[in-house]
Amino acid sequence: YAQGPLLDNLYWTKWYNNESLAAHGTQSYICYENLLLGVPRMRQLKVKNNSCVVHEDFKEEISGCYDVYSEDKEERVSFGLINGTPWRYHSEEELSGSSHWGRLTSYSGGGYYIDLKLTREESAEVLQALKENLWLDRGTRVVFIDFTVYNANINLFCVLRLVVEFPATGGAIPSWQIRTVKLIRYASAWDFFIVACETVFCVFIFYYVVEEILELRIHKFQYFTSIWNILDVAVILLSIVAIGFHIFRTIEVNRLLGELLKHPDTYADFEFLAFWQTQYNNMNAVNLFFAWIKIFKYISFNKTMTQLSSTLARCAKDILGFAIMFFIVFFAYAQLGYLLFGTQVENFSTFVKCIFTQFRIILGDFDYNSIDNANRVLGPIYFVTYVFFVFFVLL
Amino acid sequence: YAQGPLLDNLYWTKWYNNESLAAHGTQSYICYENLLLGVPRMRQLKVKNNSCVVHEDFKEEISGCYDVYSEDKEERVSFGLINGTPWRYHSEEELSGSSHWGRLTSYSGGGYYIDLKLTREESAEVLQALKENLWLDRGTRVVFIDFTVYNANINLFCVLRLVVEFPATGGAIPSWQIRTVKLIRYASAWDFFIVACETVFCVFIFYYVVEEILELRIHKFQYFTSIWNILDVAVILLSIVAIGFHIFRTIEVNRLLGELLKHPDTYADFEFLAFWQTQYNNMNAVNLFFAWIKIFKYISFNKTMTQLSSTLARCAKDILGFAIMFFIVFFAYAQLGYLLFGTQVENFSTFVKCIFTQFRIILGDFDYNSIDNANRVLGPIYFVTYVFFVFFVLL
Amino acid sequence: YAQGPLLDNLYWTKWYNNESLAAHGTQSYICYENLLLGVPRMRQLKVKNNSCVVHEDFKEEISGCYDVYSEDKEERVSFGLINGTPWRYHSEEELSGSSHWGRLTSYSGGGYYIDLKLTREESAEVLQALKENLWLDRGTRVVFIDFTVYNANINLFCVLRLVVEFPATGGAIPSWQIRTVKLIRYASAWDFFIVACETVFCVFIFYYVVEEILELRIHKFQYFTSIWNILDVAVILLSIVAIGFHIFRTIEVNRLLGELLKHPDTYADFEFLAFWQTQYNNMNAVNLFFAWIKIFKYISFNKTMTQLSSTLARCAKDILGFAIMFFIVFFAYAQLGYLLFGTQVENFSTFVKCIFTQFRIILGDFDYNSIDNANRVLGPIYFVTYVFFVFFVLL
Amino acid sequence: YAQGPLLDNLYWTKWYNNESLAAHGTQSYICYENLLLGVPRMRQLKVKNNSCVVHEDFKEEISGCYDVYSEDKEERVSFGLINGTPWRYHSEEELSGSSHWGRLTSYSGGGYYIDLKLTREESAEVLQALKENLWLDRGTRVVFIDFTVYNANINLFCVLRLVVEFPATGGAIPSWQIRTVKLIRYASAWDFFIVACETVFCVFIFYYVVEEILELRIHKFQYFTSIWNILDVAVILLSIVAIGFHIFRTIEVNRLLGELLKHPDTYADFEFLAFWQTQYNNMNAVNLFFAWIKIFKYISFNKTMTQLSSTLARCAKDILGFAIMFFIVFFAYAQLGYLLFGTQVENFSTFVKCIFTQFRIILGDFDYNSIDNANRVLGPIYFVTYVFFVFFVLL
Repeated sequence: YAQGPLLDNLYWTKWYNNESLAAHGTQSYICYENLLLGVPRMRQLKVKNNSCVVHEDFKEEISGCYDVYSEDKEERVSFGLINGTPWRYHSEEELSGSSHWGRLTSYSGGGYYIDLKLTREESAEVLQALKENLWLDRGTRVVFIDFTVYNANINLFCVLRLVVEFPATGGAIPSWQIRTVKLIRYASAWDFFIVACETVFCVFIFYYVVEEILELRIHKFQYFTSIWNILDVAVILLSIVAIGFHIFRTIEVNRLLGELLKHPDTYADFEFLAFWQTQYNNMNAVNLFFAWIKIFKYISFNKTMTQLSSTLARCAKDILGFAIMFFIVFFAYAQLGYLLFGTQVENFSTFVKCIFTQFRIILGDFDYNSIDNANRVLGPIYFVTYVFFVFFVLL
Repeated sequence: YAQGPLLDNLYWTKWYNNESLAAHGTQSYICYENLLLGVPRMRQLKVKNNSCVVHEDFKEEISGCYDVYSEDKEERVSFGLINGTPWRYHSEEELSGSSHWGRLTSYSGGGYYIDLKLTREESAEVLQALKENLWLDRGTRVVFIDFTVYNANINLFCVLRLVVEFPATGGAIPSWQIRTVKLIRYASAWDFFIVACETVFCVFIFYYVVEEILELRIHKFQYFTSIWNILDVAVILLSIVAIGFHIFRTIEVNRLLGELLKHPDTYADFEFLAFWQTQYNNMNAVNLFFAWIKIFKYISFNKTMTQLSSTLARCAKDILGFAIMFFIVFFAYAQLGYLLFGTQVENFSTFVKCIFTQFRIILGDFDYNSIDNANRVLGPIYFVTYVFFVFFVLL
Repeated sequence: YAQGPLLDNLYWTKWYNNESLAAHGTQSYICYENLLLGVPRMRQLKVKNNSCVVHEDFKEEISGCYDVYSEDKEERVSFGLINGTPWRYHSEEELSGSSHWGRLTSYSGGGYYIDLKLTREESAEVLQALKENLWLDRGTRVVFIDFTVYNANINLFCVLRLVVEFPATGGAIPSWQIRTVKLIRYASAWDFFIVACETVFCVFIFYYVVEEILELRIHKFQYFTSIWNILDVAVILLSIVAIGFHIFRTIEVNRLLGELLKHPDTYADFEFLAFWQTQYNNMNAVNLFFAWIKIFKYISFNKTMTQLSSTLARCAKDILGFAIMFFIVFFAYAQLGYLLFGTQVENFSTFVKCIFTQFRIILGDFDYNSIDNANRVLGPIYFVTYVFFVFFVLL
Repeated sequence: YAQGPLLDNLYWTKWYNNESLAAHGTQSYICYENLLLGVPRMRQLKVKNNSCVVHEDFKEEISGCYDVYSEDKEERVSFGLINGTPWRYHSEEELSGSSHWGRLTSYSGGGYYIDLKLTREESAEVLQALKENLWLDRGTRVVFIDFTVYNANINLFCVLRLVVEFPATGGAIPSWQIRTVKLIRYASAWDFFIVACETVFCVFIFYYVVEEILELRIHKFQYFTSIWNILDVAVILLSIVAIGFHIFRTIEVNRLLGELLKHPDTYADFEFLAFWQTQYNNMNAVNLFFAWIKIFKYISFNKTMTQLSSTLARCAKDILGFAIMFFIVFFAYAQLGYLLFGTQVENFSTFVKCIFTQFRIILGDFDYNSIDNANRVLGPIYFVTYVFFVFFVLL
C-alpha cells in the first residue's frame, strides 16, 4: 500500500480545495454579488481492489489492481473510520443523485460523501481530518465538489460541479460543469407579463390538442402519412411536456428553498433541478425549430417548391444509391482513421469523433500536422486519398 | 453594506490607475513623443439600490439589489462627501458627453466624475481620497478614464478611453477604445496642396448639385426609377455632409485648443470630436465605394452585362422563392443555435452573432469543439444537419 | 577542443536528465499506477572528427569539423575511459537495436550506451561520472533515453524514447516517441472470448485460402485481371501475416518478461516489439479498410454504379490528359515553393511537404503570413497565381 | 532636449545589446559550432530636428519635431564628440552599404556607425561610452547591428542583421533578418562533381544561345509572336545572368575572406553578397519554374489541349468582360476595407494587404472577429455583402 502517491494526491486535492475554498470564501459569505446556498458537498467514487486481473508474471510485484471505473466494479464497503458519511457508501437513491457524464466515462450518483461547514476554518478542519485518514486512495476514480450560488441582481441560480477524475493510468483530469438556470419566476413586474403570455400559450395549446384529436378521429391512421401532421403532433406533445415540467419546477423550487431556509447548514441539491431545466431549455429550442419549419406548410403552394420536390422525387433513387456508396467509403475512411490515429490524435480518439473530423476536413477546418506526426507514412496517404475521394464525389 | 469587496475593487482600480498613471507619467510630461492634452477624467455610473426585486424567500439575507445597468435605473442622488464633482451626479448635458457602447450594454454620458491633476503625486492623492470615501460600491456598473494625447511629429491626436465594466453578476470586464484622428489640418506645405484639391472638389460638387437639380426638374419622380440616379444623388448628398462636417471640425478644434492653452489643468473633451471624425471617415469610405460602383454606369453598354442582367431577370422569381426558403431554414437554424449554445459559446451569444457564425461555418472558419462541449448530443446533430442542408442547397 | 559548450551541453543534459529522473523517480518505484520495467538506457551516437572538409582559408582557426550525421561518418573508436559500455562503440547487432527516424535524419541502432541503476542516487552518480569524463562532446549528434513502463490496471505497456538531437549547426532539438501497446493477452475473462473469436477467424481465413487457391488454379493468370480478386488475395495475405506476427509476439513477450523477472536490473528492450506491434496495428487497419471496400463487390450490381463507371470509362482519356497537365503545373509550383521558401518556412522545408502544403492551400488551411514574410515580392505572386490556377482548373 | 526618454532608450538598447553580446559571447569565441567573422557593426540613422512643422498653437510647448524617416530628411551633420565614426555621418558610398526594407519604411545604407571590438569587455566599454555621450536621441529612427557567422561543419555563412526601429509615434519595433547562404563552393569531393555539372550546363546554354540567335535571324520579329519562343529566350537570359553572378560571387568571396584573414578586427561586409546570393537563388527558382512549364511545349500536341484552348479562345471575350466587372467590384471592396479597417486591423493596413486579405476570405482563412471589433456596424455589412458577391460570381 503506497503512502507516497496517496499523500501526493491528497496534498494536491488539498491545495485545489484550498483554492476553491479561498475562492468561495469571498464568494459565499462576502460574495461579490452572489449568495452561496447551503454548504458544498464533496463526493468520491472508488473501484474495488483486484477489480482487474494481474498477469501471473507480475503478481509478486504488483499488490493491488484497480480497474477503470464501471458501475459494477464500484467499491461499496465502508473503510477508514467506519462511521460517518465520508467512510460509508451511500447508494444513488439515498443521495437522490444522478449519474454524471465526465471526460472519461459516466459515473453513478452514489458514493462516499461529506458536507463541508459554513465557515472556512471548520471546512479546513474537515478536509484535514479526511487527509489524515487517507480518504483518497489508489482506488479513487473521481471526486465531485458540488455547490449552488444565487445571484439576486439578475435572479439566476448557478449550479457548479467541480470534478477531478483519476484514470486508471495515473494522473488527474480536472473538469467542471456550470449550469446557469432561472428557477424562480414571478419576481418582478415584467415576469407577470410573461405569466399572462404563458396562460395564453396554454389556452392555444389546449385548442390545438382538441383540434388534432378531432382530425385524428376522422382520418385515423391515414393522418400520419403526411409529414406535416406528424410535425404538428410532435410540436403539441413537446409543448405539453414543457408545461408539465414548468409546473413541477415551480413546486419543487419552492419546497427546496423552504427547506434550505429552515436548515441553512445542509447541502442544497439543486443539481437535479438544474439538469432538468437544461433539458427543458433544449427541448423548447428543438420545439421552436420544428414550429419554424412548419412555416413551409403554409408557403409550400408556390411553384418553385413543387418543381424542386418533383425533381428530387425523380432522381431520389440515383441519389440514394450514390449516398449509400458515399457513406460506405466514408465509414471505411473513418474506421481507418480511428485505427491508425486513434491512440495519438485527440480528434480521432473515438469512432464518432472520426466521423466529425472527416466532416471538418471537407470544410477545411483541420490540423494536418497532427496526422503527419502520428503516422509519417500512412497519415499523408490517408489524407490525400480521402481529399481526392471527397472532391471527386462532390464535384 | 459589505466593506470587503468594495475595498478589493477600489484597490484593484487603484493598482490599475497607478499603472496607467505610471505609464502616462512618462507619457504626458516626458512623453516619448506625445503630449498629454489637459488632464485625465475618471467617470463612473451607478444603478439605484433595490432597482430589482428580490424574491421574498431571500429578503432577509440579501439587503440590497443592484440590477443590470439601464439608463432609467441610473442612480442620480449625491452620496459620500456630498459636495464635489465625484459625489454629485451630472447629467449628460452638463458634461456634454455622449453615450458609450461597451462590452455589455450602452452607457449614458452622465455620471459622477473627477478630473485628475497635472502631476502624479496630486493625482495619487485624489485617488486615495476617493478610495477612503468608498467612491466605488456595489452599485457601480462602469468606470471610464478618458484622456487625449497629441503627437507633434506626425500631427495626430489620439483619444483614449479605458473602461472597466462591473456586470451585475460580479467580476470586472476591462476594455479600451483608442481613436486616432487628424484634427489639425493645414500645418505643413503638403497640406496646402490638399486644401487646393478640396477647393476643386467643392466646385465640382456644386456643379453636379446644380446639374442634378436641373435633371430632377425635368424628369420629376420618374428620375428616381433609375438606380444610377439614386446613386448619383446619394454620392452628392454624402459629399455635401462631408464638406459641412469638415468646416465644423476645423472651427471646433480651434475653439477647444484655444481654451486648453488658456487653462492647461482642465479636462479636454476631444472624445466628441474624435467620435464624429471616425463617423466622417466611415462615411467617406462608403461614399467612395458608391463612386467606384458608378463606373459600371459608363461601361454597362457592353453585351456581357446585358446578357447577364436579362438572364438574371428571367430567373429572378425562382431565385427569390429559393432565397426565401433558404433564409427561413437559415434563421430557424440560427434561432436553434442561439437557444442551444447561447449561454455557453461566445459565438452564439446573440442572435446576430449566430447568423454570422453560420456564415462562417459555410466558409469553413469555425470552432467545432466549442459546440461539442456545449451540448454533447444536440451540438453534433445541429452541426451535421446544418452542413448537409447548406451543401445540398448550394450545390 | 572547446571546454565551454561541452560543459554547457552536459549541464543542460544533466538538468534535463535530472528532471526526467525526478519524473520517473515517482514513476518507477512509487509510480502512480505504473511499474518501470528494468532500467532506463542512455545511448549516444557521434560523428568522426574531420568528417567534413574545412576550406583552406579557415584551417588555422577551426581545429575540428563534425559533419551532419550519416551512418558512414559514425565514430566507432573508444574514447574517454576506454573500458565500460559508455566509452566503447557497440554495433547495431550487439545492442539488437533498430534505427530511429528523428526530426533531422535517420539514426543507426548502435552507439555508446549506459544503463542507469535502479535507485535515483546511483543513477545520479552514473550521470555525474559521465559528465566529469565529458561523455558528450562536439561530435555528439544524438542522445537517446529508452525505458518501458507497465500499467497493471489496464494491462498496457508503454515504451518511451526521449531523444535530443544536436544538429551540426549547434543547438539541441528535443523530441520524444511514446508507443502504447497491449503485449500481454489472455489475462482476464473477456480476453478468453477474444481468443475464441481469433480461432474462428483463423478457420475462416484457412477456408478462404483454400477457396482462392482453387479459383486460382481454374482461372490461372486471368484471375488477376479483376480488381476484386486482387483485393481478396491482398486481404488474405495480410491476415496470414497478422496471425503469424500474433504468435511470434506472444512467444517473444513471454521470453523477455521471463528474463526480466530473473534480472530486474538490466535494460528491457521492448522497443523492438513495440515497433512491430505498431506496424501490426497499422497493417490490420489497412486490411480492415480493404475488407470494407470489398462490400462494393456485392452491391455493385445496381444501375447507378454501372452508369457511373461507364461514364468514367468514356471520359477517362480526357481526364487523364487533364490530370497530367494539372500535375505538371502542380509539381512546377511545388518545386518553385521549395526553392523560394524552403529555407525559411517550415511547411516548405522538403519537397514532399511542399506538395502537402499545396493541397492544404486548396482546402483553405494555410498560413499566408509566413509566405509573405519569407519573400515579400515573390511570395504573394506565387500565392495568387497558384490560387488562380487551381480554381480555374477545378471550376 | 529631454534627458529622460533618451536615457530610457539607451538603457533599453543597452540591455538589448547586452543580451545580444551575451548571446554572441558564446557564439563568436566559443561558438557552438559557428565562427564569428570580423566584428559586429552598429549603425544608426537620424532625422533632422524640425523636419516637420509644429502647429502654432503648440509651438511653445513642443520644442523639437522629428518627422517620420525619409531619405531627404536624414540628419547629416556631426554631433556629440565630433570626431570618431559614431558621431560623423557617412554616406552610403563610404560604407558601401545598401538600403534596408524594414517594418515601417525603407532606410538608406549610410549613417553613423561604430564597429565593436573582439572581446566582450572592450565592446561593453564602447557601448558605455556611446551611452554616456547620448548617441541615441529623439531623432534616431533606426539602429542596425550587423554581423556574420560561418559554420564550418556544413560550410554555410549566416549574415545576421538585428534592427530596432523607432517610429515617430514613440516606442520601438525590433525585427531581424537572417540570410543563410553558401558562399564558398568547391570544398569537398562532392562539390567537384557539381563543378563538372556546371561546366556541362554552361556548354548547353552556349549551344542554345547560338541556336536561338540563328532562329531569330531567320524569323525576325515574327519569332516573338509565339509564347514558347519568348519563354526560351527568358530561360536562356536568366541562365546567362546566373552564370555571370556565379563567377562574380566566387571572386568577391575570395577577396573578402583574404582581407578578413589579414585584419580580423574589422567589420566584414558580407551583407551585400548575401543579398545578391538570395536574389540569385530566387532567380534560379523562377528560371527552373519556366523550364518546367516548357514541358507543355512538347506534350501540347494531344487533343485535350487543343480542345481546351479552342474553348477558351471562343469564350475569352465573355470571360474578359466578366473579369473586368469582377475586378472593379473587387477593388471597390478592397478600397472600402482599407478605409474602414485600415487603422485598426493589421491585415487591412495597406491597400495591397487588403487585396490579399480578400483573396484569403474566399479561401476561408480569415479572422472575422478583428473586423467585427474594428467597426461594429459596417464590419459585418462589409463581410456579408462581400461573401455574397463572391459566391454569386463564382457559382
